[in-house]
Amino acid sequence: MNQLSKTAYQQLEAKFHTENAINQASAILHWDAATMMPSGSSAGRGEQLAVLAVLAHETITDTAVSDLLDAAEEDRAGLDTWQSANLNEMRRQWLHATAVAPELVSDMVKASNDCEILWRQARVNNDFKAVQDQLQHVLNLTIESGQAKAEAFNKSLYDALLDQYEPDGSVATIETLFNDLQSWLPKLIGDVIEQQSAQPTLSPLTGDFSVENQKHLGQMLMKQVGFDFDRGRLDVSAHPFCGGVPDDVRVTTRYSEDDFTSALMGVLHETGHAMYEAGLPADWRCHPVGSSRGMSIHESQSLLVEMQVCRGKDFLSYLAPVAQQAFKSQDENWTGENLSNLYTRVERGFIRVDADEVTYPAHVILRFELEKAMIEGDLQLSDLSTAWNDKMQDLLGVVPPTDTVGCLQDIHWYSGAWGYFPTYTLGAMTAAQLYRAAVSQKNEIPGAIREGDFQPLMTWLGQNVHGKASSLSSDQILVSATGSSLTTDVFKSHLFDRYLA
Amino acid sequence: MNQLSKTAYQQLEAKFHTENAINQASAILHWDAATMMPSGSSAGRGEQLAVLAVLAHETITDTAVSDLLDAAEEDRAGLDTWQSANLNEMRRQWLHATAVAPELVSDMVKASNDCEILWRQARVNNDFKAVQDQLQHVLNLTIESGQAKAEAFNKSLYDALLDQYEPDGSVATIETLFNDLQSWLPKLIGDVIEQQSAQPTLSPLTGDFSVENQKHLGQMLMKQVGFDFDRGRLDVSAHPFCGGVPDDVRVTTRYSEDDFTSALMGVLHETGHAMYEAGLPADWRCHPVGSSRGMSIHESQSLLVEMQVCRGKDFLSYLAPVAQQAFKSQDENWTGENLSNLYTRVERGFIRVDADEVTYPAHVILRFELEKAMIEGDLQLSDLSTAWNDKMQDLLGVVPPTDTVGCLQDIHWYSGAWGYFPTYTLGAMTAAQLYRAAVSQKNEIPGAIREGDFQPLMTWLGQNVHGKASSLSSDQILVSATGSSLTTDVFKSHLFDRYLA
Repeated sequence: MNQLSKTAYQQLEAKFHTENAINQASAILHWDAATMMPSGSSAGRGEQLAVLAVLAHETITDTAVSDLLDAAEEDRAGLDTWQSANLNEMRRQWLHATAVAPELVSDMVKASNDCEILWRQARVNNDFKAVQDQLQHVLNLTIESGQAKAEAFNKSLYDALLDQYEPDGSVATIETLFNDLQSWLPKLIGDVIEQQSAQPTLSPLTGDFSVENQKHLGQMLMKQVGFDFDRGRLDVSAHPFCGGVPDDVRVTTRYSEDDFTSALMGVLHETGHAMYEAGLPADWRCHPVGSSRGMSIHESQSLLVEMQVCRGKDFLSYLAPVAQQAFKSQDENWTGENLSNLYTRVERGFIRVDADEVTYPAHVILRFELEKAMIEGDLQLSDLSTAWNDKMQDLLGVVPPTDTVGCLQDIHWYSGAWGYFPTYTLGAMTAAQLYRAAVSQKNEIPGAIREGDFQPLMTWLGQNVHGKASSLSSDQILVSATGSSLTTDVFKSHLFDRYLA
Repeated sequence: MNQLSKTAYQQLEAKFHTENAINQASAILHWDAATMMPSGSSAGRGEQLAVLAVLAHETITDTAVSDLLDAAEEDRAGLDTWQSANLNEMRRQWLHATAVAPELVSDMVKASNDCEILWRQARVNNDFKAVQDQLQHVLNLTIESGQAKAEAFNKSLYDALLDQYEPDGSVATIETLFNDLQSWLPKLIGDVIEQQSAQPTLSPLTGDFSVENQKHLGQMLMKQVGFDFDRGRLDVSAHPFCGGVPDDVRVTTRYSEDDFTSALMGVLHETGHAMYEAGLPADWRCHPVGSSRGMSIHESQSLLVEMQVCRGKDFLSYLAPVAQQAFKSQDENWTGENLSNLYTRVERGFIRVDADEVTYPAHVILRFELEKAMIEGDLQLSDLSTAWNDKMQDLLGVVPPTDTVGCLQDIHWYSGAWGYFPTYTLGAMTAAQLYRAAVSQKNEIPGAIREGDFQPLMTWLGQNVHGKASSLSSDQILVSATGSSLTTDVFKSHLFDRYLA
């Protein structure tokens, strides 16, 4: 079939297929850079990735694409549901790609790279001033880019930035949810900490926590969850992530031989992400509609596995003897009860990535409110540190002693990711709501989990979430799976049940 | 500087830089496929690589490139020597890329892939007939493509195919060299085997040949040769190779715990390739002129390290105690003399990749003559097996009992690589001639090698070969480094000295 006999829609499919294949290549190269690449090769890798990014961008901003989109949309009657959704996603990607002038895109990339380098040093030195001017530059370009996207999508500035990570997300929805959270979370945190302080001290768990033993246990549990090692790997990187592509999912973790707890839950968390990627519909590989829906659904999949299931007593009662054996321990403290105490400890800390699931939303709300204020011009960078510390006092009752563990702790703003933070807590609430629905629709799930069997749960997630890919909006996925849009109700009852029962 | 203010040459530099970056990305993805990628991910990887190959091809066959090449060539007076050589290489790459219609390129890729798959099975089953039709298809397309290139380069058909691997190589030169080899090689082989059969049996070397010990020794020797592990790695693959890119060289090997000899020399062989890549001029990274010259020079670098140096007594006397220690052995047989006997054993075998350096040229001459006859229509595929066996009898005095160890043993023809084989033996002769020149110009080299010090040799190679990249032809590099074009003289005297002394 030559170019002329193809429909506009088919020609678009070819364009986006090419773009997707380039992005898949980049994903593997990113993984390689984090896991395998020797340190001296980063400049060359940066060039390779930059060239691929430009090619991917050029592929879908090609002047022909605009006309093809118009023509395909006029001829939508000839498309089936998934094809039509695919066309919508093409339009969305095209709007994001064309809204911003190429020069601004490349200025953003350069400014963010430079800022990230300054930030690494500034964080170590507790010297926010050293990065403030460059962060201002990133913020200015972010606002400029956001305004262009706001116009293209006919959205507010913040909503346009949010749309990059959470398609169709909105400040209005987030504020409604976060305001509700704020009305009960501070008291819950206080009550849980008070209750836990009255409990006996945690019994330490002993064993041989060699990297080899931890890795072996991690791989075994990944298989239990359903991870297919014929289409994926587990490796080590400084910052754990789930990368690669749906048919070749690359999970990473990092091990500490003093403490098995973090790598173990880290692996299960990333495996939740991995199951989503691997479960995307095989028939729509390389098509926009076949991609994961957005960051809140993605985070919901990792948090559903980690927080809802694996930090719950059903799973931990299964895990206790398995871990004891993996760590070659005779220690009698390997019980579900002890593991549960260990994995549900609540503390008012400074660091988001170390936070438990009860205090975590406070960290996110803080960042959401501050980034919104900065984007809208209501907060100056010179006041960021003070505003951060004041909000930490309000929300968590602790004040970071340094910016290193305050407004310098996260890479997001410095690397140009504005509008990303809320998706963590949207994901946590989505996870609670989905798991509740799964259990109520398939009563056998908790019993299976008690035996280390994830198949009933994964089958449900495959049908209700993974297999939907981007054929529906996040809200539609949730309504169809749980009967309701996102609310705080299930998340709230989950926290009260687990932490104050 | 915008597009309009750039010279034609500068615009070409940008195009070829992009093409090169795409090819670098592909090189890392190829390495990943051979070393890291799980088995189920190959289809997706194939698509990623195919898309990148098309993009690289499109980048330099863009309609603008033809005019830019003409304009830059008219303005050649403004270019320095390297820029001018760079322009020549751009023209060569462009001629190869545009000579053949895109449909024929993609037919070739598909036919070769299909043929390679059939070949794997046919080889196992000793069933040449099962792959004969598909091989005929590959051969027909190769001839069609070769004829188009012959016209573009104004060369003969075989020379045009050869030019893909060995720029400016010619049948005339190869036949002169190979005819000379044939006049003395069969007798030499007979004499060496006779002499070796009179020697005492090889003393077996014992030790702990665990993968760990072999890997550790391999890495140590790579460092000794000068390999920079900040810009490269050593891993395992089914078929050892040197891949990656100049700033990130990925060497692979495979280990047998029964026998350390093959992996050890394999690693040193690939390190020779790696040193060439890493030693290409840093200022010309990503430019055509900055690439390695061709396959005969490339193979000369691996064979210089492996055959000229590391199978020689100077190096083996250094290696003996080092290997003994690495393999934790008390065995008294770890002497340079015993290692030398082990590493210079000559046998009339069926398999090219297992052949020693004395019989190897016979395997290559056979393939060169047969492929030339097939390409020129003088040998039909139905007669290949018989022709192969007859030539084995003529050249080596043995006849393969099956096609599996005969005309089905090598992947080259089945995967579409016609015109490649002669470069192995051109490389072996080039290695001998270069090493002789290096030693005569820097007398300290053999003494340094006896102490495991490769630096004087690598400095010489850096100046005389690696650093020249593609700024000169293979012949010019050799004349400039050794004072003469390629002859069989030094190779011949090397073989007589080492094997009949």
